[in-house]
Amino acid sequence: MHTSKMVDTNPTPPILPADNLAACIEACFDCAQTCSACADACLGESQIAMLVRCIRLNQDCADVCLTTGRMMSRHQQPELRLLQQQLEICILAAQLCADECARHAQHHDHCRVCADACRVCAKACQQALAALGSESKQPSHKA
Amino acid sequence: MHTSKMVDTNPTPPILPADNLAACIEACFDCAQTCSACADACLGESQIAMLVRCIRLNQDCADVCLTTGRMMSRHQQPELRLLQQQLEICILAAQLCADECARHAQHHDHCRVCADACRVCAKACQQALAALGSESKQPSHKA
Amino acid sequence: MHTSKMVDTNPTPPILPADNLAACIEACFDCAQTCSACADACLGESQIAMLVRCIRLNQDCADVCLTTGRMMSRHQQPELRLLQQQLEICILAAQLCADECARHAQHHDHCRVCADACRVCAKACQQALAALGSESKQPSHKA
Amino acid sequence: MHTSKMVDTNPTPPILPADNLAACIEACFDCAQTCSACADACLGESQIAMLVRCIRLNQDCADVCLTTGRMMSRHQQPELRLLQQQLEICILAAQLCADECARHAQHHDHCRVCADACRVCAKACQQALAALGSESKQPSHKA
Repeated sequence: MHTSKMVDTNPTPPILPADNLAACIEACFDCAQTCSACADACLGESQIAMLVRCIRLNQDCADVCLTTGRMMSRHQQPELRLLQQQLEICILAAQLCADECARHAQHHDHCRVCADACRVCAKACQQALAALGSESKQPSHKA
Repeated sequence: MHTSKMVDTNPTPPILPADNLAACIEACFDCAQTCSACADACLGESQIAMLVRCIRLNQDCADVCLTTGRMMSRHQQPELRLLQQQLEICILAAQLCADECARHAQHHDHCRVCADACRVCAKACQQALAALGSESKQPSHKA
Repeated sequence: MHTSKMVDTNPTPPILPADNLAACIEACFDCAQTCSACADACLGESQIAMLVRCIRLNQDCADVCLTTGRMMSRHQQPELRLLQQQLEICILAAQLCADECARHAQHHDHCRVCADACRVCAKACQQALAALGSESKQPSHKA
Repeated sequence: MHTSKMVDTNPTPPILPADNLAACIEACFDCAQTCSACADACLGESQIAMLVRCIRLNQDCADVCLTTGRMMSRHQQPELRLLQQQLEICILAAQLCADECARHAQHHDHCRVCADACRVCAKACQQALAALGSESKQPSHKA
């Protein structure tokens, strides 16, 4: 992905360290793709009814991750509370989806892969949230 | 919009009263459209630089509202915490965007209209959140 | 929805008649909501396996309609070919989804409602496309 | 990204070669991220008015690419015409955006990076479209 280069070439410096930010954005877009694909893969299984909660969380997580990835891609006029809350809900959505996918991982490889993508995403968002929190204590940053 | 009919014909009953739910979903989709349009209208004004914060919040709010509207459109296997947090961030995004738009409402009619759509959305989400809270005290609804 | 007011208050006049444009945008957002809801409602039915094609087209149509609704909400620097092709694919997606939903309409009321929303959307996009075509013969509109 | 693993673990085989498909999906999500970031970076430049067409195409291209990436991530019950038309509009959007960004590449590094991401995306979609076309001549594939 071109994410790091886009972070580095934005005329407005990012509100958190560039490597944390790029890792978070990439993980969000990756997780959104993986969750969309897992929802579809579940529909191809013979026991769909057992996978309804998985499909539902896949869909919610995909939508939340896309919103997070797009919001974090913007550097202009950051609104600290909004970014923090978006990262928090993204962590929650990714953890819920990872836990549900993990329950099916033994039978369905796509759920195993998706659980991994969700955990990577949750971790990257947690690190971005931590970095955002320590940055926000510096008086120079616009809240 | 066909929202109420879709709420009523879903084989799984909604987790909150149908009228609250439909009003919330419609307000989210309406606000997403309005914010996308306001971001574009701002780009057509002569003093764009003064509207960068407005455009940024328009974009964030549009994305958050679409995710909220899509998530609330799903009845299967609801995850209460996730719905609550999504409604909360939608209220925050819509209030921030309404406040910023209101600052430009005297000069730009599209900001005046957008501030109104944002406030309608924030209110509908608050009512849905309140309805969800009182429903969640019933032991039968947890998925 | 606030769509008409947003079309009227954009400093850049629309590339097609305001009433055609607003009807098209509203129908796209409505259809996106309805299709997201129908995909979820299908997951709540006992015979999910028979509804996989319906769910898949619901999801594709929802995504295409949102992109169309957002693209048509923008007035700045319109690119005629892009708008025309987006309207064309939206008509195709909505017709395919309407036809599939119609096959299940007798058994599932949500499919009956969704087929109606898809047809309204296809028709509004066709009218917008026709209006765009006749406008494009005026030399002054090309961006 | 986890794209290749998701393509390989879907119980339904893809309608085009797995490596073409995964490359196309990854390029679409990458381009969507890059275009969202470029639209924001343009808003941070001093001469925004000269970048309005760039911002507009960035936004359209981001939306089209996300829809393409999500649609191509689904294997169930593919509808050949719909996939082909979505790939075609994605190629058009990415080429238009690449050409506009290239006009600003000398002055704005983010436009140079974005033009590259758009070209990679257009090429990957062209290769997917070609692969889809030759597959569709095989009578065994569901259209």
